Amino acid sequence: MLNIEDLKLYLCTDRGLSLGRPLVETVEDAIAGGVTMVQIREKDIPSREFYDLALQALRVTRAHHIPLIINDRLDIALAIGAEGVHLGQSDLPCIEARRVGGEDFIIGVSAHTPAEAVRAERDGADYIGAGAVFPTGSKADVSAIIGLDGLKAAAASVKIPVIGIGGIGPKNAAEVIASGAAGIAVISAILSQPDIREAAMILRRCLG
Amino acid sequence: MLNIEDLKLYLCTDRGLSLGRPLVETVEDAIAGGVTMVQIREKDIPSREFYDLALQALRVTRAHHIPLIINDRLDIALAIGAEGVHLGQSDLPCIEARRVGGEDFIIGVSAHTPAEAVRAERDGADYIGAGAVFPTGSKADVSAIIGLDGLKAAAASVKIPVIGIGGIGPKNAAEVIASGAAGIAVISAILSQPDIREAAMILRRCLG
Repeated sequence: MLNIEDLKLYLCTDRGLSLGRPLVETVEDAIAGGVTMVQIREKDIPSREFYDLALQALRVTRAHHIPLIINDRLDIALAIGAEGVHLGQSDLPCIEARRVGGEDFIIGVSAHTPAEAVRAERDGADYIGAGAVFPTGSKADVSAIIGLDGLKAAAASVKIPVIGIGGIGPKNAAEVIASGAAGIAVISAILSQPDIREAAMILRRCLG
Repeated sequence: MLNIEDLKLYLCTDRGLSLGRPLVETVEDAIAGGVTMVQIREKDIPSREFYDLALQALRVTRAHHIPLIINDRLDIALAIGAEGVHLGQSDLPCIEARRVGGEDFIIGVSAHTPAEAVRAERDGADYIGAGAVFPTGSKADVSAIIGLDGLKAAAASVKIPVIGIGGIGPKNAAEVIASGAAGIAVISAILSQPDIREAAMILRRCLG
């Protein structure tokens, strides 16, 4: 079950952007700095490796009462007992994930347009990740930068909370919130900083 | 729920080995020729694409009352309502897949040694895929050819049915069955043949 306050500072992991530091260590530091929710995102690794990694992360998030969300892989989320799954537009349909995951399971969906946000809400999503709000180097496909206007449009189109993702850092976090977002999702603004805990603390302060 | 007779002639798909023919068409032809069970195996495609493909295959297998098994992706199996999942040693732990999938869900596990077969049986597997029995070009990793002796050892180590996989065709299918296998799993012996239906019919005859 999603608590809207948990969306405030949402860390998405990417081992390629963490300056070589172990995933569990970066998650631990980020939570110490004030991260409120963690999503593990892994592509192109064997399922068992993803499972093992997610299970390690879950031990940390559980100890701090932080929800853990698994990107794409609903089966891994259910196998480890994570709080939820985050689905992109190329992942499983939200409506099927809801049926399999059950009522209390947290489901987030990435949306690039209000139409996608509305469909996700109808199909049972708990929150929307809208973006990319700003240009970012973290993801290869940034063909569609939605800007703050696109974020506002997404937030206005649904009743469920919307978080902004893409190119968000201390300089623009406040305006993302001012545009109607319940929180910000970041990767490199925390993971690629020399001091992860400090980077998370600074972002938390920017969010008011 | 697994019917041991369904393991007799088990087709694993591989779009790279089907001479460019569409997956659904090859499955349809293979079933017409006598295939008793179908496993969809896809690597490195987006989840939604795998889901769509599996759903297309399910329409065909359902029409013919043939169980459909999804390789690795328990979430896709559950999302489309497939009969089961097949797990390799690098996939999710069988024990977690059983817990998530429930009692009646079919779970197969690949095993290369009697120890792996015994562990899978203990963790709730319904059947074992033992191999590679013979050298094969279908899979990159054939470091461990277990031979008919390895197959016999695997079959003798567990109570659940064992099927042979790897390099099996009309010339050696009978000896695989004679070595204690409940069936054979094939890819190229059906998929890479010019006439898929005929190839499946010939194999069925070899199985007695």
